Amino acid sequence: MMCELLGMSANVPTDICFSFTGLMQRGGRTGPHRDGWGIAFYEGRGCRTFHDPNPSAESEIARLVQRYAIKSRIVVSHIRRANRGRVCLENTHPFHRELWGRHWVFAHNGQLRGVKRLPLDFYQPIGTTDSEYAFCWLLGRIREQFPHAPHRPQALWRHVHALTQELNPRGVCNFLLSDARYLYAHCSTQLSWLTRRAPFGKAQLMDADMTVDFEAETTPNDIVTVVATRPLTDNEPWTVMRPGTLAIFGAGVPIAVFGA
Amino acid sequence: MMCELLGMSANVPTDICFSFTGLMQRGGRTGPHRDGWGIAFYEGRGCRTFHDPNPSAESEIARLVQRYAIKSRIVVSHIRRANRGRVCLENTHPFHRELWGRHWVFAHNGQLRGVKRLPLDFYQPIGTTDSEYAFCWLLGRIREQFPHAPHRPQALWRHVHALTQELNPRGVCNFLLSDARYLYAHCSTQLSWLTRRAPFGKAQLMDADMTVDFEAETTPNDIVTVVATRPLTDNEPWTVMRPGTLAIFGAGVPIAVFGA
Repeated sequence: MMCELLGMSANVPTDICFSFTGLMQRGGRTGPHRDGWGIAFYEGRGCRTFHDPNPSAESEIARLVQRYAIKSRIVVSHIRRANRGRVCLENTHPFHRELWGRHWVFAHNGQLRGVKRLPLDFYQPIGTTDSEYAFCWLLGRIREQFPHAPHRPQALWRHVHALTQELNPRGVCNFLLSDARYLYAHCSTQLSWLTRRAPFGKAQLMDADMTVDFEAETTPNDIVTVVATRPLTDNEPWTVMRPGTLAIFGAGVPIAVFGA
Repeated sequence: MMCELLGMSANVPTDICFSFTGLMQRGGRTGPHRDGWGIAFYEGRGCRTFHDPNPSAESEIARLVQRYAIKSRIVVSHIRRANRGRVCLENTHPFHRELWGRHWVFAHNGQLRGVKRLPLDFYQPIGTTDSEYAFCWLLGRIREQFPHAPHRPQALWRHVHALTQELNPRGVCNFLLSDARYLYAHCSTQLSWLTRRAPFGKAQLMDADMTVDFEAETTPNDIVTVVATRPLTDNEPWTVMRPGTLAIFGAGVPIAVFGA
């Protein structure tokens, strides 16, 4: 069984409480993801992260995140089922590094064979996971290609897609990545997304007895896309991504898909 | 009025609740530090950070940190009084970057003139503070001198001290820095430290009506050093650092002082 990813892109600062509640249930209650969780919230140029190696369904910090309702335009979250690397703080996703004066975060689902034989230069892993190693490699390759931020983001997106094609043959590589402006979602085997916009309806979580009426919670201009390993609700039209595709989300909507 | 720094080095994972409670009072209640606060806890090779641009005395996250009693061997904390840079998440100390596969964190008190004219290469600031800029410069210079971690930490400590001598003429530069192994405390104008070890006594916070009997809270082998801008208790023998000195703390005790 794999890890669960959850990402969000929104056009206005939005809380992720509802989806996060569903995800957290999979951390030890309805799912086997008992080996820690983490979440990164972008807030302007800043980024707030919470990591907890404890099972999320019992986590004190998870309860804070659910109650505190941090509003963000980009969120990346991960619940871990350890398959490689010890259960500890430094092995808990999402991982983060700075490039071009921006916070980059990365969360990964899957196993990658031989990834630690790839050469690293700029960024070095702190923990022992394949995932953090792959992130260091990916970000180092981005930096090598673009010592400064490119003027047109499309060139960057294409480069990220080319790099995913180098990782794909090594195993399972579903990931969420953000450069503080866009949310990158790469589907290797399993990833789905859903855009919510007016007219909003009611959504029913699959993993908890909880319904939210988004019409009461949002304004007519809000647009929010949620990306998750598996659909979190059972009454909304999720798009199941095709393996090998990289989708780019900005301001709540999908704006580019590579490898489709 | 300046920011307040608080650091801890301990030989066993220790919570910082008592000192943190005192520091938090200075965030809006007894002190004028209403422009945010942040704290970094090392846990093994991992590092957990909390940042909040809100005044600490009213902060939801501050209450979590006080209650949750995270145990750590190295802690770096900061309450901010904005003098340069907007009040926002990315301008909230402590700042962090990775070098040699280790988390480095930095919190600074003071103003540095013209620091943004120093050349940067490797690390770029995410926010707009002089402090984060100085950290990027410092860490870049460390990386330049030591592309790999030196075998003997003394060479690194001497280099950090030499770099502080380049910063000192530019203004006020009290800081706390950690490389995940040691706590570096640099006194430019104001910094004090205190080591607690057996036999433990009672300590009385200056900023809150709170006393702790460390004998009841600790084991006889515990050794903890607390570093703070100003002494936090009024009945213990704090050491006031001399301006221009850099002290290195490891496993709860001072192990080197440069520039004394």
